Amino acid sequence: MKRYMMVVSYDGSAYRGWQVQPNGATIQEKLESALKAISGETRKIHGSGRTDQGVHARKQVAHFDMESEIPFKGLKKGLNALLPADIRVMKLARARETFHARRSAAGKEYRYFIWNDDILPPFLRNYRLHVRNRLDVNAMREAARYLVGRHDFGAFTANPNREVESTVRELTLLKVAKRGPEVVIVARGSGFLYKMARSLAGFLVRVGEGDVPPSEAKAILASRKRTARVPTAPPQGLFLWNVTY
Amino acid sequence: MKRYMMVVSYDGSAYRGWQVQPNGATIQEKLESALKAISGETRKIHGSGRTDQGVHARKQVAHFDMESEIPFKGLKKGLNALLPADIRVMKLARARETFHARRSAAGKEYRYFIWNDDILPPFLRNYRLHVRNRLDVNAMREAARYLVGRHDFGAFTANPNREVESTVRELTLLKVAKRGPEVVIVARGSGFLYKMARSLAGFLVRVGEGDVPPSEAKAILASRKRTARVPTAPPQGLFLWNVTY
Repeated sequence: MKRYMMVVSYDGSAYRGWQVQPNGATIQEKLESALKAISGETRKIHGSGRTDQGVHARKQVAHFDMESEIPFKGLKKGLNALLPADIRVMKLARARETFHARRSAAGKEYRYFIWNDDILPPFLRNYRLHVRNRLDVNAMREAARYLVGRHDFGAFTANPNREVESTVRELTLLKVAKRGPEVVIVARGSGFLYKMARSLAGFLVRVGEGDVPPSEAKAILASRKRTARVPTAPPQGLFLWNVTY
Repeated sequence: MKRYMMVVSYDGSAYRGWQVQPNGATIQEKLESALKAISGETRKIHGSGRTDQGVHARKQVAHFDMESEIPFKGLKKGLNALLPADIRVMKLARARETFHARRSAAGKEYRYFIWNDDILPPFLRNYRLHVRNRLDVNAMREAARYLVGRHDFGAFTANPNREVESTVRELTLLKVAKRGPEVVIVARGSGFLYKMARSLAGFLVRVGEGDVPPSEAKAILASRKRTARVPTAPPQGLFLWNVTY
């Protein structure tokens, strides 16, 4: 049995997310059945983390074990031939047997894309949050400065279960970039809680719209409680951008 | 009765093309029914030209007449609220009564996008022709030099009917640009024959793949006859990029 790692890119629009679900197609399921069709083996494909329904990945990393000896190039080609065009294996390689896509990950980067203009161009409809009111990017940047660093992000996750898992995480970067009508939130950290990236984006958009003052970030962090000040931004703007090891 | 012009952008993936058809949704039909819902008037919307099934438009121009007095801003907003997200009215303005989207057009620009790499990224799957074999861009450029200018393009159109219409057209620009794995064919001219943009792209790809020598362009033009050396490139790579007046 040998271990492999792969880099997967996908358009999440048509899927119920990464993880296998009882109802509806998922990325993991499509990958597992393509692998089975080629190798004959029923193997679990372990991602670096789940992505929700409608969330995209520029670079998701996964690992799996396999007994068959199939040359990489042919395996990658075969997987891509069997996969739908909205999921692509960009890279495939042997991994050491201790490599684990989730546990070995040192950090992750998410990017949340906002189209801040009157009209959302048709080609971006599945890849941007559309915000018509002009966002105050400087206010968003000020709020981001309160959030970067090591904090209890309990107020920025859905259904935290503190008995099972700490809600303390470290954001090494939280940047708000603007290029014309596009506003991009770049979040890097060692780990993200469930729906944390979309909660950070949802909060920063509320700040940018002038509904919440930037300094509220401090009180919200301290409260550790999720409130209406922190909505979950819709999935289509979010991309898992990179996973580092 | 007043005349209006509009700039429309659309993702052609889900449509049977611009022009109203007996079966299947078209861009023109969607625009006409949105306009009817707002104004109560049944009006024809005249495009600068048809685009085929699956072809996109960054900037299509159209005109229509209307009796109702509706402020532009509200009309544009209302149309976009009623239209599906893959069709957007980017601009709307009054036009002089002699303005005609097709007849007044001075020139058009089409761009044909090719992804020349092993793997087509999932986000581009509906917007690029995927060519795995490395294209010889210099050969494509040489062939383009024979095609630019005023010629009889009878060999680069589908079903020409010379008794009705001349097949002589002028290409003012035919450029092949390369940026990393992307190869873009830019074609500008005063007018294009039916399927001409896709036929030019189809021929240039064959040249780039080494199937046809660039200088064959001269003999093909002279023959005025369509042959297998000039396939119609698939629609999803083609964008109506601009119309000038």
